[in-house]
Amino acid sequence: MLPTRIQIVEVGPRDGLQNEAVSIAVADKVTFVDGLSEAGHTAIEVAAFVSARWVPQMADSAEVLGGIRRRAGVRYSALVPNLTGLRRAQEASVGEIAIFAAASQTFSRRNINQSIAESLSAYGAVCEEALAAGMRVRAYLSVAFGCPFEGPVPSATVADLAARLVDLGVYEVALSDTIGVAHPKQVREVLDVVAARVAIDRIALHMHDTRGTALVNVYAGLQAGVTTFDASAGGLGGCPYAPGATGNLATEDLLYMVHGLGIDTGVRLDAVVDASRRMETLVGHLLPSRVFRAATAPPPADALTR
Amino acid sequence: MLPTRIQIVEVGPRDGLQNEAVSIAVADKVTFVDGLSEAGHTAIEVAAFVSARWVPQMADSAEVLGGIRRRAGVRYSALVPNLTGLRRAQEASVGEIAIFAAASQTFSRRNINQSIAESLSAYGAVCEEALAAGMRVRAYLSVAFGCPFEGPVPSATVADLAARLVDLGVYEVALSDTIGVAHPKQVREVLDVVAARVAIDRIALHMHDTRGTALVNVYAGLQAGVTTFDASAGGLGGCPYAPGATGNLATEDLLYMVHGLGIDTGVRLDAVVDASRRMETLVGHLLPSRVFRAATAPPPADALTR
Repeated sequence: MLPTRIQIVEVGPRDGLQNEAVSIAVADKVTFVDGLSEAGHTAIEVAAFVSARWVPQMADSAEVLGGIRRRAGVRYSALVPNLTGLRRAQEASVGEIAIFAAASQTFSRRNINQSIAESLSAYGAVCEEALAAGMRVRAYLSVAFGCPFEGPVPSATVADLAARLVDLGVYEVALSDTIGVAHPKQVREVLDVVAARVAIDRIALHMHDTRGTALVNVYAGLQAGVTTFDASAGGLGGCPYAPGATGNLATEDLLYMVHGLGIDTGVRLDAVVDASRRMETLVGHLLPSRVFRAATAPPPADALTR
Repeated sequence: MLPTRIQIVEVGPRDGLQNEAVSIAVADKVTFVDGLSEAGHTAIEVAAFVSARWVPQMADSAEVLGGIRRRAGVRYSALVPNLTGLRRAQEASVGEIAIFAAASQTFSRRNINQSIAESLSAYGAVCEEALAAGMRVRAYLSVAFGCPFEGPVPSATVADLAARLVDLGVYEVALSDTIGVAHPKQVREVLDVVAARVAIDRIALHMHDTRGTALVNVYAGLQAGVTTFDASAGGLGGCPYAPGATGNLATEDLLYMVHGLGIDTGVRLDAVVDASRRMETLVGHLLPSRVFRAATAPPPADALTR
């Protein structure tokens, strides 16, 4: 049985725009986030308080958070790597942060220059301070379905790290297919192992569409009882036509499928398309979401055969 | 339980190239088909004996069929609309033909200028003659999951038409999501209704990826017991970045998923990528297959966060 309702975490303003080559003006980011909340999104990752040297696209996070119109019932969050980031998030009046650990040592070293153990220790302090301040903490577990350096990642490792993140006080762990290699059988296997350690309602899926499998992996997740999925408006942050694309699952593609499945999201597809359309003109390339493309350039009705 | 082995019907040389804007030289088509058979494909739709005025891309079908190296164990087929097409196919020594009916009256009228009943009557004569000559006949049932003119198509209509096509002597009916609107729940529902009339091993799925759902619809089909799926190398015949794209499911995307699921196809992914790569230089645009794109332009290993 599939769930009757799911929670979508919209990551376009952060995970999406962070991976775009061009810089977007604060006012345009604000319009984008407000468009997404007006579309019905109730969880939006807006910003990241990370090094502006490494991630210049997020340098204006405080201004964006200061500019958006905060709607009641919507959770706005920011990615933070450490205590400094947490404090900047607090100054920007963010009620929720996201931390990011990795499921492989090599990826952890390369991504955040810490071993997994070191990162969990540091995040322990971040969680403690955030929770004491009444904030909610979400965690990403990167490369949970495969690492570009180490290859396959044992499900037991993923389960163990997910459990340790929950022990730190995070309300949810987003198992992330960072390089888009997962297939639905693997998703089921990993979820079964993880669910033996962590309640399934604390598990989210953050799939990348690098190999076109994001949606089918979501479907496998739905069949396994997962009810929270990350997605990026328009598929922002990845373009299959550009080398180096990471390919976030597009919100429009997710909505089209789950609404077809009779699953309620509270999010209006047409309004997300509108928000994406405005952003498309700013990022300087066509957005990869197939539903967005079909909505903005419908195929001709007449086509011979098949 | 998923099947341990599936049959892929490679439609790139026909359904793919037919929908590309540029004309491909006979020698290049021959190289393409031979590359696909060398990759392990055992069912390839090579050509179409249709009006050269309406489908100029297929005008050289006899030459292509005369040029390919026919490997033992590989079924080469051609699309035919009528008795004239059948005879041209016979002259080209094709052992298998494909006919195409529609699941909605309006689409049937627009696509082949006949009512459904008229088309079935005409195809009856085609089947009779083909079967008498020892040929195999496959059928497409277009717009089985939705019509651009009529919208939803009743499952009972699909089941009835599939049964009538089987009664004509076709060995298999490819239920076709011509405009790429199906979602996995619908796939399951349609298949359940059809399977009450036609043995499931006579049903194939021909999905288009217009809205990104082709692969998840295949997965739903696998779960329902379907073991034959159509796909087009590189996703030829549709490009989400071009208006009017119809978006065939890409063979590479299908292979990546089903091989991950532990399902045998007999087809080597890397060899299909090689065949697609050569064709990509000829069609003049990037091919939409995400696995092809990832294989030919791998994402960088280092990407901050998630």
